[in-house]
Amino acid sequence: MSEQRLESWQERTISTKQIFEGKIISLQVDTIELPDGGQATREIVRHPGAAAVLALLDDRMLVVEQFRKPLEKFQIEIPAGKLDPNEDPIVCAGRELEEETGYRASSLRPLSAFYTSPGFADEKLYIYLAEGLEKGEMNLDQDEYLRVDAITLEQALAYIEEGRISDAKTVLAVYAWRLYKLTGEI
Amino acid sequence: MSEQRLESWQERTISTKQIFEGKIISLQVDTIELPDGGQATREIVRHPGAAAVLALLDDRMLVVEQFRKPLEKFQIEIPAGKLDPNEDPIVCAGRELEEETGYRASSLRPLSAFYTSPGFADEKLYIYLAEGLEKGEMNLDQDEYLRVDAITLEQALAYIEEGRISDAKTVLAVYAWRLYKLTGEI
Repeated sequence: MSEQRLESWQERTISTKQIFEGKIISLQVDTIELPDGGQATREIVRHPGAAAVLALLDDRMLVVEQFRKPLEKFQIEIPAGKLDPNEDPIVCAGRELEEETGYRASSLRPLSAFYTSPGFADEKLYIYLAEGLEKGEMNLDQDEYLRVDAITLEQALAYIEEGRISDAKTVLAVYAWRLYKLTGEI
Repeated sequence: MSEQRLESWQERTISTKQIFEGKIISLQVDTIELPDGGQATREIVRHPGAAAVLALLDDRMLVVEQFRKPLEKFQIEIPAGKLDPNEDPIVCAGRELEEETGYRASSLRPLSAFYTSPGFADEKLYIYLAEGLEKGEMNLDQDEYLRVDAITLEQALAYIEEGRISDAKTVLAVYAWRLYKLTGEI
């Protein structure tokens, strides 16, 4: 199939209906034109994006355990938080690491970046590898309650097996960590 | 910190406001009780969940390229689709693989499962490893336009570098594929 044919599959917006503007996300429904001339709707969540950190302290990674209301359960995740307006993701990663765990990183390197759910949301998540950790200042948001821990790769794999680690960024960070240990590359 | 203390960090729902019921997602805002007795709101997207397939054809994986309206761009992803009501994810994976690519798998094994964005959504995504592919019947949804391709691991890594592959499930599947090739384990 030609690139030209693919290009014609862009979904032109006919109209946008704003449904909700929240603290964290907003929701709109777009009516679009299909390649065959028909119409369809697309439900779209807008999110400011987020940054997360695979922070290594010797042979352990820092994790935080917190209650996740959408899942109605506690989850163990790598430190993360949403971007402030116009914030560089690497700055956000360093900030969230220190706020949530009390550690500052002397080195932050890009590890991965991905859209969490491109079918209905524009959220992009940036993951950094943090090394050279030293004690900084913990500082949680007012409605944030979490427990910090440092776990080995074996523990992380066991937590994935048990479902205590089960979010995209943390599962991906654990895979990346395994690859890093096997190959020496990030 | 004790497990008892952690347990007290559950966020009890005080009230739920239903904002939107769509074709794919719904949105609610919960008012919750914080551990200190204060209140906060949580914006929650409900999604039926989805299944995706790392489908290997010799040393290539099947991918589909399609327009993603929330991102306003074309993306290359592994075949995937949302669960029908009460559908077993492995059945969904096999169905979506055949509908989107025209291939049927003689073997489907669980590779990973994760919540895409536990901060604001309950979407869970199940990934399966499909091997032993044979020709079946392609059958796209009415508003679905996509191009099928089979790419090597090197191409997949290059597409990640270029941002043509950039969604959580596909990036994770590529990491898993690399680990599978290195270790022989899934």
